[in-house]
Amino acid sequence: MVLYDLELSGNCYKIRLMIAFLGLDCELKAIDFLGGEHKEDAFAAMNPFCEIPVFEDEGLTLRDSQAILIYLARKYGGEAWLPTMPDGLARVMQWLSTASNDLARGPNDARLHDLFGYDINVDLARRKAHLTLSIIENHLKDKEWLELGRPTIADIACFPYIALGHEGGVALDGYPAIRSWIERIKNIPSFVAMPGLA
Amino acid sequence: MVLYDLELSGNCYKIRLMIAFLGLDCELKAIDFLGGEHKEDAFAAMNPFCEIPVFEDEGLTLRDSQAILIYLARKYGGEAWLPTMPDGLARVMQWLSTASNDLARGPNDARLHDLFGYDINVDLARRKAHLTLSIIENHLKDKEWLELGRPTIADIACFPYIALGHEGGVALDGYPAIRSWIERIKNIPSFVAMPGLA
Repeated sequence: MVLYDLELSGNCYKIRLMIAFLGLDCELKAIDFLGGEHKEDAFAAMNPFCEIPVFEDEGLTLRDSQAILIYLARKYGGEAWLPTMPDGLARVMQWLSTASNDLARGPNDARLHDLFGYDINVDLARRKAHLTLSIIENHLKDKEWLELGRPTIADIACFPYIALGHEGGVALDGYPAIRSWIERIKNIPSFVAMPGLA
Repeated sequence: MVLYDLELSGNCYKIRLMIAFLGLDCELKAIDFLGGEHKEDAFAAMNPFCEIPVFEDEGLTLRDSQAILIYLARKYGGEAWLPTMPDGLARVMQWLSTASNDLARGPNDARLHDLFGYDINVDLARRKAHLTLSIIENHLKDKEWLELGRPTIADIACFPYIALGHEGGVALDGYPAIRSWIERIKNIPSFVAMPGLA
């Protein structure tokens, strides 16, 4: 099991967090992101989208952090993190699209601008971030977890870029339910942190 | 089974296509999109993101076209459209993230700009579209379907906004493998079209 990894990437961190929760052993291979290693031929052969993370297990190579979470949860997590039944499965999957789209183009984009100097419309990214956070805040007002009353990969997929929001100028002051949810995630046994998490 | 639907939406069309392939009966409730019905309280109570489609079945309400595809495939499609095993499941899921993010912010955004007058950076959307199409073209060069050697929800999720690209100024002239793949999808028994599909 190999994770092609960048310590500062929230999408890589999702996978490290899932691996920690599942108690798995995984080799981390650091990608020289600033040096552009993810754009070189060897990396593009694994993932033509030239994005991290990439994950290998038993001859399978996967791109996309959401797909990797699904793989790990299904293969090593039983029913705990991702149910097999249609109802629960689809409820969780709604949030993986939120992570892949709304949060990627919201707090993640704002952080890419502020932390890594990406050429991104940061005002638009922050507006999108707060729109999505307002919806999640309201959703979490009477819930401990995003779906199913327990931690699932929905929470893992959405957690990093929300919790790292302050690195893109997206503060969580107005979102008490989200802040409580973040604390609950941090209290899951075997939780591991990453740089930038308060 | 109810689909809150907009005929011109590629994300709604994905669901109509899946329903047709599965031979299901589903009531279509047209949303008055231009009149802003999706932003009214009754709709926001079903989906706080105020996006179509929304889908109801047996007391379950789902948002997000990718999650709805997953639900329908798992509940009514056996192993045909979405495998349960981790390897195949994750391979398919990679493309649902591509649909939810790259294609949404590529050809979909370009079409929203051209067809519906959305305030979107259309040059950026078209550049993203062609970057994603180039990757998919190369991926399909030696394949009939995106994954697993058969049609899956990966194909259904990615098909609409690629096939509708011309409505956002994203022509498919340079992508012969994609054009062949589109023809294969159109030849699946029970295929249904939507306005704008050539």
